[in-house]
Amino acid sequence: MRTSVYIAVSADGFIARQNGDLDWLPGADGSDPDSIEDYGYKEFSASTDVLVMGRLSFEKILTFGEWPYKDKKVVVLSSKPDNIPQALKDFVQWKNSSPPDLIKELSLQGFNHVYVDGGKTIQGFLFNGLVQQIILTKIPVLIGEGIPLFGPLAGDVLLKHIKTQSYPSGFVQTHYEVL
Amino acid sequence: MRTSVYIAVSADGFIARQNGDLDWLPGADGSDPDSIEDYGYKEFSASTDVLVMGRLSFEKILTFGEWPYKDKKVVVLSSKPDNIPQALKDFVQWKNSSPPDLIKELSLQGFNHVYVDGGKTIQGFLFNGLVQQIILTKIPVLIGEGIPLFGPLAGDVLLKHIKTQSYPSGFVQTHYEVL
Repeated sequence: MRTSVYIAVSADGFIARQNGDLDWLPGADGSDPDSIEDYGYKEFSASTDVLVMGRLSFEKILTFGEWPYKDKKVVVLSSKPDNIPQALKDFVQWKNSSPPDLIKELSLQGFNHVYVDGGKTIQGFLFNGLVQQIILTKIPVLIGEGIPLFGPLAGDVLLKHIKTQSYPSGFVQTHYEVL
Repeated sequence: MRTSVYIAVSADGFIARQNGDLDWLPGADGSDPDSIEDYGYKEFSASTDVLVMGRLSFEKILTFGEWPYKDKKVVVLSSKPDNIPQALKDFVQWKNSSPPDLIKELSLQGFNHVYVDGGKTIQGFLFNGLVQQIILTKIPVLIGEGIPLFGPLAGDVLLKHIKTQSYPSGFVQTHYEVL
């Protein structure tokens, strides 16, 4: 069982503005769907078999229109009541679990590679030592404030640098393994 | 007149622990003074003719023992009373100036390239649009909390990616120009 983070961050470490907006992230609005460059996203996504996110990420994705994850099991972690639209009930599961409990359950169900998304959710998995791979794509902009990618930890988390690639867009992608 | 930032940050964006400690930053204690790899520091430092830092950075450097900047003018920005040790009075100037006023003054004095150091000081210069170059060396560790490199801004600050280099140590150094 392996858990990975694949996410874009501003150069000052935010994954969204305070209100969830991604207007600072070129391409986030799908305005360039034919772009050849996907920063390894499809390959990464295809290597995972379950996507775990928080309620805020889920609600943000709903605003994009069509549900983009019809080929993957999606778990929304939230302590609030389920608000899955009827049309998505087959694709999305709403759970109020701790990260360790969820990982145990997904492992028992035979899942192999968890894609963890969203600020609070990623922070919860990191805090519990449940992330093995972090792929960060740094966007060349400072936005000053927003939803931070990282948060408090129980202790230092050492990373092993695997590779870094920069793109003509100015994006810099770094792959880390968590030690 | 050009202003540059050259600084090491944890992968979660801190330049020091909350108490100023750099124990998470390999080499910061000078334990390996013969290291061949200096991550371009000497070349960068030699290209600057004045170093501006805040009081906390100054007090931290004092704890290292010998003053490392005897060949460079150093300005400590602080609204508190001067606490420069007698032996350093020739090397260090204590000023209670705003970043724009200081840049104007240094420019009039003929300085060409300002090296800005320390969290609050860097944030003040960025907020005032007074930084042209940022060289970030990302250390492969998450420390969870500490003194952040970046802070609030008056608006988005667009960066131009110049180059990124990774090192066998796992450090990843990115050069940006501020647009």
